[in-house]
Order: sequence, then C-alpha cells, then structure tokens
Amino acid sequence: MSKTPITVAYGDGIGPEIMDATLKILDAAGAQLDIETIEIGEKVYLRGGTTGLEESAWDSLRRTKVFLKAPITTPQGGGYKSLNVTIRKALGLYANVRPAVAYYPFVETKHPNMDVVIIRENEEDLYAGIEHRQTEQVYQCLKLITQPGSEKVIRYAFEYARSYGRKKVTCFVKDNIMKLTDGIFHRMFDEIGKEYPDIEKETWIVDIGAAKLANSPEEFDVIVMPNLYGDIMSDIAAQISGSVGLGGSANIGDQCAMFEAVHGSAPPLAGKNLANPSGLLLAAVMMLQHIGQPEVASRVHNAWLKTIEDGIHTFDIYREGISKQQVGTKEFAQAVIDRL
Amino acid sequence: MSKTPITVAYGDGIGPEIMDATLKILDAAGAQLDIETIEIGEKVYLRGGTTGLEESAWDSLRRTKVFLKAPITTPQGGGYKSLNVTIRKALGLYANVRPAVAYYPFVETKHPNMDVVIIRENEEDLYAGIEHRQTEQVYQCLKLITQPGSEKVIRYAFEYARSYGRKKVTCFVKDNIMKLTDGIFHRMFDEIGKEYPDIEKETWIVDIGAAKLANSPEEFDVIVMPNLYGDIMSDIAAQISGSVGLGGSANIGDQCAMFEAVHGSAPPLAGKNLANPSGLLLAAVMMLQHIGQPEVASRVHNAWLKTIEDGIHTFDIYREGISKQQVGTKEFAQAVIDRL
Ligand SMILES: CC(C)[C@H](C(=O)O)[C@@H](O)C(=O)O
Ligand SMILES: CC(C)[C@H](C(=O)O)[C@@H](O)C(=O)O
Repeated sequence: MSKTPITVAYGDGIGPEIMDATLKILDAAGAQLDIETIEIGEKVYLRGGTTGLEESAWDSLRRTKVFLKAPITTPQGGGYKSLNVTIRKALGLYANVRPAVAYYPFVETKHPNMDVVIIRENEEDLYAGIEHRQTEQVYQCLKLITQPGSEKVIRYAFEYARSYGRKKVTCFVKDNIMKLTDGIFHRMFDEIGKEYPDIEKETWIVDIGAAKLANSPEEFDVIVMPNLYGDIMSDIAAQISGSVGLGGSANIGDQCAMFEAVHGSAPPLAGKNLANPSGLLLAAVMMLQHIGQPEVASRVHNAWLKTIEDGIHTFDIYREGISKQQVGTKEFAQAVIDRL
Repeated sequence: MSKTPITVAYGDGIGPEIMDATLKILDAAGAQLDIETIEIGEKVYLRGGTTGLEESAWDSLRRTKVFLKAPITTPQGGGYKSLNVTIRKALGLYANVRPAVAYYPFVETKHPNMDVVIIRENEEDLYAGIEHRQTEQVYQCLKLITQPGSEKVIRYAFEYARSYGRKKVTCFVKDNIMKLTDGIFHRMFDEIGKEYPDIEKETWIVDIGAAKLANSPEEFDVIVMPNLYGDIMSDIAAQISGSVGLGGSANIGDQCAMFEAVHGSAPPLAGKNLANPSGLLLAAVMMLQHIGQPEVASRVHNAWLKTIEDGIHTFDIYREGISKQQVGTKEFAQAVIDRL
C-alpha cells in the first residue's frame, strides 16, 4: 500500500504527549502514513500570528488535505482568532462528526447504552463571526444559515448513517422561533430525508431535544444540527457518555479533513505522562477510515477496546472494582500496541 | 389581608384541568386572590388574532400586573407568533426563573442531589425575532444583546441568590466566539458580581457548562445566561431533575410578572383527569411569594411535598416501590388540600 501524506500538529499542553502516543500506535498497527509536521498554537500566536497558523502550515494542509491535530492553547488576552474556526472555514470543513459512546462498565457513566453520533454544521450560524457594536450599549451578532450549507451537512449525515449501518437520523432546530434560518435547515432535512427511505427520521425543537439527549441519550442514533447547537450537544454527549477524554472528532470537507480530540490542551497535566491519549487516538481511527485504511482503523480500535476492557487506563477514567492497572500516557500506548 | 388582583388563563389541552386543580388548592390554603379570567391560545388564534391574545386580555394584564397562565396550543400552520414571546416582550418580563429540583426517591432521577435555579434573560438574543432572507439561499437572524438588558437580569440573579440564601451564581456564555454580544454579558456579570462579595461567582463557556450541568447538576446553584442558552439549559435541568411535569417558572419584569408551568398543553392527555398539576402549582407558589403572601406559599409547597412524600402521584411520576397511590388530577389536588 502506498503511503498517504498527512499533516500532523503536536499542539500545546498535553498535545505533544498524546500525539506521540497516538503516532506510535498507528505505526505499530501498520498505518501507511507519510507525515509532515507543522507548528500551530500558542507559540505561533505569540510570534504575532493572529490565527495561530503560519503560511508554511497552510501549504502543508493544502498539499496533504488530511490533518491530525492535537489540542492547542490560545494565549490569554484579546485579539486572537479561534484557530479551529479559522481552519474549518479556510478548508471548507462543513461537517463536524462527534461520536459519543459509553464503554460501560469500563468507564463510569449514568447512560450505559448510549451510542450517538452528533453531526454538526461547521461553518455557518453565529460562528460566521459577523459581530458589531451598534450603539454604545447594543451589540449584534449575525446568525447565518444557507440552503446549500444546510443541504451539504444534512446529506453528509444521511450518507454517514447509511454507510455505518445506523438506523435513524434526528434533526435539532428551533424553528418555532427562527422560522427562516432554522426553518431552512428543517426544510432541507425533510426534503433530503425523502431520498433515504431506509432511514428513520425525526425532528425535535432543540430545547426539548437537548432535554431528551441529556436524560436518555440511548434513544438517539445520528443527530444533525446547526453549528451552535451542535457545539453544545456534542459536549453534553461526550461528557455524559463517561468522559470528554474519550471523544474523537472529524471535521469533513469536500477536499480536506481534520481529525482531533474533543478535549482541550489541559496545561496543568502537561509533561507529566498522565494524559489520556484516547480522544486523539479515536480521532486517528476516524482518519484511517477516511483515507481508505479501514483494516488498520479496526485493528487500532479493537486493540484500544481490549486495553480498556482489560482494566488498563489512565488516571482520568479510574473505576473502583474495574480498574486493574492505572498507567501513564506512554504505558497506555504500549498496552494498546501489545494488543494489536 | 386585602385580596391581590391576578389574571388567570385556563389555556388549552390539559390547561383547564391543571388550572382548576391549582386554584382549588390556592383557595383552600387561604390565598387572598381576586381573580380575573381571560381567554388565550388556540381559539383566539383561530378567531384571527395572530398573537393568541385579545385587547381585553391585555387590559386585564396591564391592570392586575400578575398573570397565572396555563399552557396553550399554537395552531398548526404558519403565521402565528409565539404567545409567550409576545407577552414577555409586551410586559417587559426580562428574567425567566426556572428552578429544577430533584425529589428523590419520590421522583426517579439520576441526579438525586440537584437543586438548581436557571435564570434566563427573557427579551433579547435571537428571540428579538429580526430575521430575513438575504438572497434566495441565504437566511439571517439577528442576535441582539444590550448592556442594560444584561445588567438587569444579572442583577436580578444576584438579588435572587441573596434573598433565597443561595451561595453561588454561575454565568454561561460563549464569548470565545461571540466576543461582543456574549462578551458584554460576561463583563456585566463580572462587574455586577463585585457588588455581591458574599456570593461565589463562576463563568463557564456554554458548551462546557452544559456538559457539566447535564452530568453533575448538583454542582450548580443559580445559573444566569442569555435567552437561547437559558431556553435549552432550563429544559435540560427540568428533565434530568426527574420530570418536566414538576417545573414551574416565573417571568419577572419591573411592573408585571407571569407564572406558568414549564411543560406544554399535552393535547393527547386533555380532558382525561390524568395530567399532573404540579408544574403550574409550583409556579403558583412562586406567584404567592411574589405578591407578598409567603406564608400561603409555604403552606401550599409543604402540602404538595407531603403529598409526594406520601407516595401519592399522577401517572407520569410512578416509581416502583415508592408509589402508594396513583391518582387523577382532581384526586391529587384533593390530596394536597388534605395536607394543608
Ligand atoms: C474552541 C471553540 C471555538 C470550539 C467551538 O466552539 O467550535 C470548541 O468548543 C469545539 O467545540 O470545537
Ligand atoms: C414556546 C417557546 C417560544 C418557548 C421559548 O423558546 O422560550 C419555550 O420553549 C419556553 O422555554 O418557554
């Protein structure tokens, strides 16, 4: 198999450690990757880049079109643009895919049967960043929803459901209030849904949907929604599934894709060989599927699962009675490699 | 004690039954109320009122300034404005107060220790209803946050915390993205917070806060936030506390106030003596506090609590092993009256 070129960024905080662990596992599993490394994040911001990404990094991303990204730290103080939002927009990453799965009893959760994938529109909505001060005391932000933008992410959600054998796609909107913006999202959901008669469809007003998701997440399968709702719901889902530390995510565009952990750079844990590399590793599994190396993806995923099921874990997902061995980042990676 | 004039609307669906039950209990408890009844909701909408509220109803509301409202049904089809949003704006009801309390073991919940009050800004944000179609495929909605609007609801939250002996006020915003609109809300929180040194303060980015709320609601006390986040978080909190059926809410303005259940009009249950009147009753308890009849408020609240603790309940909150007697709406009201 020829090697697939990918761009890798080690990020800040715990980023370097979990990236190291992840890449070691991928290598041992036989992933065929040609890795280009770029620098992003805090240091780049502080060198004066308002976006935390330099021109050479963009060159690499445009060339490889696949980005495995560790979490970064945005420096304190104003004037820094969100790197994530910048990348999503610059590379046209319109769908953000965030699975949230319970690994009970190995990971503590109140929702042992949940297995939901949140697919979030990733470029529009209030994230368009159009904001201004209208008068001294009045501030405005523009929420923007387009028909093609809605159509793309909704179609992606149905295709995703079909190719992963999922039974139902749910839509969250607030179109009793936002009849035009959320209205078009809802209408596109109904319209595109007709092309997928094999898949069950339902729509919830976002507040009611959110309440159901928080209370009985096992009733959902794939959920698609506008950007801001997706931001909130995917964090809820990750957390109640047991740990944000296990969440991986894919940002998908027509040309490019970016894969990352759901969690942040956790500066207090950095450099201590404590961090859980699972979120980034599960993102890397999604990357392997995306670049056409599904067998390697399965191999890594199964070895990770086996490690967890053997009671081997980092400090963050300790469970009384289930825990067999609490290990550091490196030892956890080695345990996964031993099970490949 | 002289009687306080209030306006009452029986609403649609289960509205009339739960209002009947509630008013019977208030009367038996010795509430001093001079009740004016108005008609709102589905029938009024269908008579051609786009807001579901006629002029004579407005007259009553402006006169009494206190509104106890049962849920209504908005007719299917377009063109109907949300009655709730209309009333909130017309009467300047800037703070929406929604307690979510677990009554474990009498009501099933995964979060037995939660006792949180969500205070939601109630007039601004995306609810301003400024929406348009910019081009054939592009839709926009304006999110509006003002300094005075933020200040008012935040001050209300701190005053509420102080007068009910609450220890902490938390703020949810997304000002890493919406630096101006959510930014002003956050800044006002920090500024006004300084006037309340006796109260603990914290701020969470809304996605992370939402995840914490869904996972460990017992860590929160009072939470204040902009309109849309509050809409979503208050439904989550109500649901995971055990039942939306138990949620009462207050909409507070400088002049007027409206009290209602968090749940809807549930047409399939209507007229069957099945509905749980607790949400509206607990809203009425908040009303009694508001109009200066706190002893009656406590009497009603304690009798309700005693009823629940005696295992007497409507069908919706049945619990194996705890349930002593499942009753209808009327019998539940009688059980509360017996315990006054
Ligand atoms: C860091 C922030 C801009 C980002 C977002 O809101 O999209 C994060 O919360 C996420 O969900 O990836
Ligand atoms: C009915 C709807 C307009 C309303 C809202 O979004 O405010 C409801 O969800 C609520 O929370 O009271």
